Amino acid sequence: MANKLHPSNIQHIEITDSLFGRYVSMIAESILPYQWGALNGRVDISDSDQWEALNGRVTNERVSSCIDNFRIAAGEKKGAHSGAVFQDTDAYKWLEAAAYCIQIGKAGALKEQADELVDLIASAQQPDGYLNTYFTIANPEKRWKNLAEGHELYCAGHLIEAAVAYYHATGSEKLLTVAKRFADLIGTVFGPEEGKCKGYPGHQEIELALVKLYRVTRENRYLDLARFFLSERGKEPNYLIREMETTKDFRLFPEFSHYDAEYAQTHLPPIEQTSAEGHAVRAVYMFSAMADLAKECDDEQMKQACKTLWENITTKRMYITGGIGSSGLLERFTVDYDLPNDRMYCESCASIGLMMFGQRMNLLTRDASYYEVVERALCNTVLAGISAKGDRYFYVNPLEVWPDNCKSSTSMSHVKPVRQEWFSCACCPPNIARTLASVGQYIYSEDEKSIYINQFISSKLHTAMVGTDVTIHLNSSYMQDGCVRITVESACAHPFTVRVRVPSFLKKPVFLLDDTEISPVIENGYAVLAVSRAGEQTFTLRALVEPELVAANDQVRSDIGKLALMFGPFVYCLEEADNGKNLANVFVGYNAAIQRRDSLAKLPGDLPTLCLDGERLVRTTEQAGALYAKPKFEKAKGSLTAVPYCLWCNRDPGEMLVWMKAQL
Amino acid sequence: MANKLHPSNIQHIEITDSLFGRYVSMIAESILPYQWGALNGRVDISDSDQWEALNGRVTNERVSSCIDNFRIAAGEKKGAHSGAVFQDTDAYKWLEAAAYCIQIGKAGALKEQADELVDLIASAQQPDGYLNTYFTIANPEKRWKNLAEGHELYCAGHLIEAAVAYYHATGSEKLLTVAKRFADLIGTVFGPEEGKCKGYPGHQEIELALVKLYRVTRENRYLDLARFFLSERGKEPNYLIREMETTKDFRLFPEFSHYDAEYAQTHLPPIEQTSAEGHAVRAVYMFSAMADLAKECDDEQMKQACKTLWENITTKRMYITGGIGSSGLLERFTVDYDLPNDRMYCESCASIGLMMFGQRMNLLTRDASYYEVVERALCNTVLAGISAKGDRYFYVNPLEVWPDNCKSSTSMSHVKPVRQEWFSCACCPPNIARTLASVGQYIYSEDEKSIYINQFISSKLHTAMVGTDVTIHLNSSYMQDGCVRITVESACAHPFTVRVRVPSFLKKPVFLLDDTEISPVIENGYAVLAVSRAGEQTFTLRALVEPELVAANDQVRSDIGKLALMFGPFVYCLEEADNGKNLANVFVGYNAAIQRRDSLAKLPGDLPTLCLDGERLVRTTEQAGALYAKPKFEKAKGSLTAVPYCLWCNRDPGEMLVWMKAQL
Repeated sequence: MANKLHPSNIQHIEITDSLFGRYVSMIAESILPYQWGALNGRVDISDSDQWEALNGRVTNERVSSCIDNFRIAAGEKKGAHSGAVFQDTDAYKWLEAAAYCIQIGKAGALKEQADELVDLIASAQQPDGYLNTYFTIANPEKRWKNLAEGHELYCAGHLIEAAVAYYHATGSEKLLTVAKRFADLIGTVFGPEEGKCKGYPGHQEIELALVKLYRVTRENRYLDLARFFLSERGKEPNYLIREMETTKDFRLFPEFSHYDAEYAQTHLPPIEQTSAEGHAVRAVYMFSAMADLAKECDDEQMKQACKTLWENITTKRMYITGGIGSSGLLERFTVDYDLPNDRMYCESCASIGLMMFGQRMNLLTRDASYYEVVERALCNTVLAGISAKGDRYFYVNPLEVWPDNCKSSTSMSHVKPVRQEWFSCACCPPNIARTLASVGQYIYSEDEKSIYINQFISSKLHTAMVGTDVTIHLNSSYMQDGCVRITVESACAHPFTVRVRVPSFLKKPVFLLDDTEISPVIENGYAVLAVSRAGEQTFTLRALVEPELVAANDQVRSDIGKLALMFGPFVYCLEEADNGKNLANVFVGYNAAIQRRDSLAKLPGDLPTLCLDGERLVRTTEQAGALYAKPKFEKAKGSLTAVPYCLWCNRDPGEMLVWMKAQL
Repeated sequence: MANKLHPSNIQHIEITDSLFGRYVSMIAESILPYQWGALNGRVDISDSDQWEALNGRVTNERVSSCIDNFRIAAGEKKGAHSGAVFQDTDAYKWLEAAAYCIQIGKAGALKEQADELVDLIASAQQPDGYLNTYFTIANPEKRWKNLAEGHELYCAGHLIEAAVAYYHATGSEKLLTVAKRFADLIGTVFGPEEGKCKGYPGHQEIELALVKLYRVTRENRYLDLARFFLSERGKEPNYLIREMETTKDFRLFPEFSHYDAEYAQTHLPPIEQTSAEGHAVRAVYMFSAMADLAKECDDEQMKQACKTLWENITTKRMYITGGIGSSGLLERFTVDYDLPNDRMYCESCASIGLMMFGQRMNLLTRDASYYEVVERALCNTVLAGISAKGDRYFYVNPLEVWPDNCKSSTSMSHVKPVRQEWFSCACCPPNIARTLASVGQYIYSEDEKSIYINQFISSKLHTAMVGTDVTIHLNSSYMQDGCVRITVESACAHPFTVRVRVPSFLKKPVFLLDDTEISPVIENGYAVLAVSRAGEQTFTLRALVEPELVAANDQVRSDIGKLALMFGPFVYCLEEADNGKNLANVFVGYNAAIQRRDSLAKLPGDLPTLCLDGERLVRTTEQAGALYAKPKFEKAKGSLTAVPYCLWCNRDPGEMLVWMKAQL
């Protein structure tokens, strides 16, 4: 039997949540307008470059020329291409986010801007279907000649994703046609047939996009092309490495001067990979496509590979915040249990990719546990990536910041102690926007007979079950009273089930149906609630949700003897604004009493702050001021205030710390 | 009154120490022969590149062509230059080390090799006096056009140092003449006079070399040129930055793509600098020259600047091992109290430079305390830089190593868990060789009336005091019995003083003269021992020397709640070979009893190993195997074995740790 589980249509989901609802409202009202300004060169990026000391700047421009590049490629304007070769995707992701706003009925004036951008993109398409402003303007004769660095297929992937979203949102086929023409051109260049190129993307993305295109068009050729790219990857001789060797006169990124096979996951055929290696975003985008294909093609071997890779990431290579990418260089995975808290990457986009991978694994297996990780990434790293006002962004998401040592031209220069206005590599801001605008897809999924509730984000869903209109009101107040109320309105009595994920942070969960306790079956982590009568029924999930101190596996050297504070799915942190400087000098008892206090003023959601007792060393050496001397550990007790990590750095900037030292 | 304090002539110093003596003997017997092989392309360097992921390789060669480059420049061989632009200095430092071996009478067959190298260097000198194989072979028209990256003046400095050493060792003026001709050519190119270039070295070194040349020749023009280079540095507009902007077609190092003024200490005139910034080796080489010039020119302002810079390094930016350079990128200083233990540089050469700076500050001020730092750097980082067999080297000297995460193409790729055979940037190995071959210069200094004993390295000094032959027998057994015996033989009764530094690790020091307790005056940290009769007198310094646990200043975030174990000047560390894996999971009490055990078999010196009780967490979470879960801190007691840091990684490779967690 085909597995028809799919995310619910966000068009019919209304987010009412006090935390996520605020961001969703801001997307169209202020975030996308701000980002549009950035894409049109109205935000200074000269100070917010993330790689300057390492690799030279991605661009020497002071502002983004993203939209201008399309105008030049379309012949509407004269000039040279400027910015990173992959910069077209900023526009595509912006457009995808705008399409979601249209789809959920929140676009307003944005609709017109989106339509204009669609026209502009279409105008920039070349007569043969090719579409990429860098290669069109700057290097037309180099098409497909530098797959390792050129990002053409990566850009094509984001074009396709935007086109599919815009089609779903508007019904207009204009951009979908553009995308299909480009995909079809790609299909004439790459493929298993003799004479076609046996290359594949240097940055995976098009694979999952082609699956989306297949799902809209039902054209098998798109699925086949995605499979082709995955099946060529990792073959020997290594296509990308051979290409790097033969095209030395055309280098785009200095950091690739010693391209290693793991960086872009070309060290083994994807299906044989057992650990998450290399660039984190590339990895999770590819794993997402693998999960998609395992589902579409009922490919058991691919499914097992996905499970193994997921297991590796989530049990050995993931931060408590759902961040991934432990290396401060090249945004990549390192080795099992290597999770340094200050110097890593934890790129916002990588956690978005982890959400995508987890969502797809859930769709593939119907196992609720994947959403534990989706929730971890979403509620912590992804939300932390954007300011409460929506106009500042983190690319790197550390768990420990000492602003003084985030100094340029040092090994900490990639870590920014405050969110930035924009980036020369600006992948994260529009990625966060498209993710939050479509957050409904991570809440509900459904098949013919079941509605799955995967995340407790207050919202309303209209859908149809067994031919009947169904409305779900999800009212989540677990952070206040431990309760989640699910009211189901059904037009008639055809039976269906509502499957409610029971996350691990809900302790001693009890279910009630209209005030009567029930004992639903738990299947794959979901409580199966049968709905078999018309009208309104309210299921209540009541549980103990308490702040708790958490430790890491003792193989995680960076966290040994440390504790992190969690409340529900939210990781908490200490900020200098509440606790003063030198947070590394904070010790807490592992059974410290934790009190809830008011939430932070003027910030989204009603997430309480938390207070607990701690200690500090007021002196570590006998000799005051000495750099090294005989120890003298004098302690002072004091009260600590912790705030949700997702909201950090929305007040006075300063130090921040997740993992506190434990009094052992 | 002129300050005539100077290091004693190493020709008259015999090192008998069981630790240092072994290295000194090995220099001529095996170390320099091994290094000669490396310079002649007989050691594979293809795997030991230190910067590959960051900056591209310094060279793509599989072996060093250092000596071949001289042959090509001399016209003895055809071919292209290969290797780093600064590679000539490997030969110069090797030759300087060989000269010291000749001077102390240990050269043997090395003498002939050194003479041949001198001839080769002389043959490579151009008719006008210019001498640099890279520019001569590869870019003759670019002489002096890229001071920021070209290292011409840096290479010239090491040539001069080698020439001065060779002259002192042999009396031959051959290389000195070569060096003078080149220095004189440089003096026609650079200088305050109209029409001369107002540039200065991108890598300081020639300044201190010119002072050495002045001291041999008494030609003021060399002193003036050194002063000129220092006085131009830091002026606006910045010469090096302007040069970088105007010579974009001639770049040598990708990491300089965004040259910042601090990197090469050009952000302020040296005399106005108050903190150690930028590349650590450049900084301490320059500060050494500043201390030299303050002494030679009796320049009080320069002296104050040196004191301020010294204070900044040694009280805020120096590791307990005497390592400097906290950034894993660009080998540079970062900010006060930023001393990460795993990802830093602590380049061997930087600690050698710190020794040089400290020695010069002592010569300038006669203050013994500078030698506390010289000793710290020498006994820990510098010795750790070379294997017990002398044929493997560390460039980076971490205080904490987990070999698994020292992975290539990540932010830890510069940290090597084992010493390397050679490097594409091989500055450290011959620098260590020249330092150890001349270690006597750090033990004794003298003026007309005093002999200073600065380091307790067992040795014998012959010199003349007040017209009389004097012999000092320094017999140091403080690590065994807390004693240092100083036997003075004087030919006649002219009075002089022996000034003995009383280091802080000698607690409750007592002095005896031939078994009778005396109470010498302590001046500037030196016990002043009067010698006023002919014949033999034995002074004994008896003190308490015990292993002790040390803490860091509480501003050092990386070391809060941690303890390091020291014994005398030696930092101790835990190794996996004795203590198993996961050393981050070791807790020690701050009053733990420490037992002495036998020294490590087959390793230099008689440094005991140390044992102390510790604890480990056998479990950190309730749920075994979970990445994050409710804490459950179960402890297991056990015995720990610590070994001298300077000897680490001479057995089975593995983890290493200096700063252990404290039981608080």
